[in-house]
Amino acid sequence: MFEAAELGHKLSKGQYKRIEPKLRADLLDAQYELFKNGRFPVVVLISGVRGAGKAETVNLLNEWMDPRHVHTHAFDNPSDEERERPPMWRYWRALPPKGRIGILFGSWYTAPIIDRVYKRTSAKGLSASIEQINHFEQMLADEGALVLKFWFHLSKKRQRKRLKSLQSDPETRWRVDARDWEFFKYYDRFYRVSEKTLRRTSSAHAPWIVVEGSDARYRAATVGKTLLEAMKKRLQRTTERRVPKSQAAPIVRPVDRVHILDRMDLSQKLDKASYSKRIDKFQRRLALAARHPKFAKRNVVCVFEGMDAAGKGGAIRRVTAAMDARFYQTIPIAAPTDEERAHPYLWRFWRHVPRKGRFTVYDRSWYGRVLVERIEGFCSEADWMRAYSEINDFEELLANDGAIVVKFWLQTSKEEQLRRFKEREKTRFKRFKITADDWRNREKWAGYQEAAADMIERTSTDCAPWTLIEANDKYHARVKVLATLVHAIEAALRKR
Amino acid sequence: MFEAAELGHKLSKGQYKRIEPKLRADLLDAQYELFKNGRFPVVVLISGVRGAGKAETVNLLNEWMDPRHVHTHAFDNPSDEERERPPMWRYWRALPPKGRIGILFGSWYTAPIIDRVYKRTSAKGLSASIEQINHFEQMLADEGALVLKFWFHLSKKRQRKRLKSLQSDPETRWRVDARDWEFFKYYDRFYRVSEKTLRRTSSAHAPWIVVEGSDARYRAATVGKTLLEAMKKRLQRTTERRVPKSQAAPIVRPVDRVHILDRMDLSQKLDKASYSKRIDKFQRRLALAARHPKFAKRNVVCVFEGMDAAGKGGAIRRVTAAMDARFYQTIPIAAPTDEERAHPYLWRFWRHVPRKGRFTVYDRSWYGRVLVERIEGFCSEADWMRAYSEINDFEELLANDGAIVVKFWLQTSKEEQLRRFKEREKTRFKRFKITADDWRNREKWAGYQEAAADMIERTSTDCAPWTLIEANDKYHARVKVLATLVHAIEAALRKR
Repeated sequence: MFEAAELGHKLSKGQYKRIEPKLRADLLDAQYELFKNGRFPVVVLISGVRGAGKAETVNLLNEWMDPRHVHTHAFDNPSDEERERPPMWRYWRALPPKGRIGILFGSWYTAPIIDRVYKRTSAKGLSASIEQINHFEQMLADEGALVLKFWFHLSKKRQRKRLKSLQSDPETRWRVDARDWEFFKYYDRFYRVSEKTLRRTSSAHAPWIVVEGSDARYRAATVGKTLLEAMKKRLQRTTERRVPKSQAAPIVRPVDRVHILDRMDLSQKLDKASYSKRIDKFQRRLALAARHPKFAKRNVVCVFEGMDAAGKGGAIRRVTAAMDARFYQTIPIAAPTDEERAHPYLWRFWRHVPRKGRFTVYDRSWYGRVLVERIEGFCSEADWMRAYSEINDFEELLANDGAIVVKFWLQTSKEEQLRRFKEREKTRFKRFKITADDWRNREKWAGYQEAAADMIERTSTDCAPWTLIEANDKYHARVKVLATLVHAIEAALRKR
Repeated sequence: MFEAAELGHKLSKGQYKRIEPKLRADLLDAQYELFKNGRFPVVVLISGVRGAGKAETVNLLNEWMDPRHVHTHAFDNPSDEERERPPMWRYWRALPPKGRIGILFGSWYTAPIIDRVYKRTSAKGLSASIEQINHFEQMLADEGALVLKFWFHLSKKRQRKRLKSLQSDPETRWRVDARDWEFFKYYDRFYRVSEKTLRRTSSAHAPWIVVEGSDARYRAATVGKTLLEAMKKRLQRTTERRVPKSQAAPIVRPVDRVHILDRMDLSQKLDKASYSKRIDKFQRRLALAARHPKFAKRNVVCVFEGMDAAGKGGAIRRVTAAMDARFYQTIPIAAPTDEERAHPYLWRFWRHVPRKGRFTVYDRSWYGRVLVERIEGFCSEADWMRAYSEINDFEELLANDGAIVVKFWLQTSKEEQLRRFKEREKTRFKRFKITADDWRNREKWAGYQEAAADMIERTSTDCAPWTLIEANDKYHARVKVLATLVHAIEAALRKR
């Protein structure tokens, strides 16, 4: 992968002078068109060996284009707010919105490569990271992002020469530190690990472009031209969708039309006295668990989904009543804001991922993609089809970082829903809970049920299982929610 | 102030039972109306002595209302991202958007009171904090927020009793820690400092409500009722503006109609050779200053304002060209997003305040309030009139926290602007820089000039002075911008 970048590529001053003005003007044009059209973000990764001109190139891109619409992010040591979330959180935070160019200096590749070079992870660990990265970049591309990954390379000989020459000039001496020479000692290992990583993560939708870093003019022109061509090509594309609808595999219905939700025993009930006693008991246990010293290193992501009037709000309140308001957040999911709409679908959920020691309760969630968005046609079939694995990836990242992920589907019968709708319309302080939308959704009951059954089947995983809640009886439902949550947290605290 | 909260206020179970259901339903109604109407945010501060039931009351409010639209924030130790910004940054971050209720547990009062009790600040220091707080809360109110501040009080005797009883119950023992008893030792000092602070920060638009904390039913009903009444009263108000237009004092024009911008010598020029030499020199010095070890504890907030085509973009690029793209951010100010619109005016600028060791360059800025918004009538006269002092407060907070605040007004003649407009229309990669808006604004040249002169006069302060840049000649303008910036940074680095 790196051989071609050791040929001593060069551009003479004259050649460069002929290319540069037009390249620059064209880049500015393309950038402006991107900004105006606002249909997709451009994500540019800048990686590679030290001393290969990464910083200079980033500065040059900012000079060539309108720096006001370029978002440059350098990833040094994570802040404590970042450290208390999954490693990917900081990159999600930095993703550029549609219409902008985001330059990421350092990226999700940095830690996996360094960890492997220093043998802090095994070959398998690296493979797992690579797989995660591939999924993530696939998602970015599917969400419409133009992803370009530049790797700045220097041969060992040239890198040594470069570091030495930087060091000998008083103007640039500050740029070389002990870490540079330490990394240089591991040059060969870096070479092998990077090569493997690049090879396995270069794809049509997120290609690696290896750039020889020794000649400033050559590397600048290469990066500029590549970026320009990719933007132009993408801007010319008239259709917005990457994946044609027909490419999504159809979901095959069980031939007998029976699904998991049909098999629930909705007659389950609890009398008021046992309810009070048990709710009380589980609330105490929940409060205790949240104060357990080990909980300081865990967090809880709790998802509530269910048909309208299934009792999500009531169940959530029984959960939060047990907790200290300082340590939980309830996130009601409604229409996205314009900042949220300008980012990949999961961005609005990532922003609320709790720190360690905290709870986030999502009242409806990312599953909207495969429920309401699927049923109402707010996204294409291809979009919601791929959402299953995107969601599984997301929840796996949370779980790997120590989050306890608990997901509830609250199920009532269609008759019970009707009874509740009518009751809501009568009760003064429940009136606001019932809208015309609810009645409209009710007409699509069967569709929603089918979508929910698919969702449960495809996203109930070991690390983030669904719990089905029979919710015709509110007492039964709430106790089961609390019991499940308490058991999940207690089990997690026993483990580590 | 606290005497009335030591009377042993109480509510019997029977009384409470009669009040609670209606209070709860009314609160929910009011909350829903607030949510629907979306015209203002409600900011509820929860402060007071330990053991007085603050956490219980917050939990209860979350139980009574729809917790999905209540944002509860507890302020414990600041994170590193927070520590590297002015102390107010974390509170700006937590302000609820319009239509929501934000409960702030701990607030901008915590540090000033504790610092004074522990004698880390002088009486004068506390006074300065109080003044800052008053300005801040005035701004919140002027921006439309409903601000309610609850202080939970216990007499010394009752606090001792309360801490002991919490401690003796195994269920609640965890809630009392060494810090509680340490604070208790300082009870009298806390009493005096809090009393003084409350007295001097209780205003019609942000009143303190002192609540006796010993009886759970009494304090819950008091907080609930106060919040309800305030919300209802505010929701009934039909006009949106707090300050009637007529209350704003008029700005009196100099009778000879000569203002500061008229006195600028726009004929100043630089030839290309001196330009190149000097730009180069100052860029080197800027790069060096940014790498100075002391710079790690400072940051730079750099504002560019000026008429259209005055050369802001070009000047910004000469500044950023000297810097490493990893350490600066250029923020172009255009129309606010909907999240930004849902917050007080300055919120969108606070979010980009740089961490230590970083630069933020604002291409247009908060001064839009007193320039374009004033001229185009996007805000009322009262709004832009108060903006001068809000802006001065904002910049003072930045400067007090170590920021180097540098502000440039770039001035061309009206003829030079015309020449540049025409040139832009001709030049390929400048076309996007000229729009119909620019031509429209040009017609209001005199108004903008007057607004700019007022702005400079009212917001050029010691800690954040304006520098006027004669910009008919780009070379002169760029060199003066860079020289000013370099001198400001170098002077600041010499100081501490």
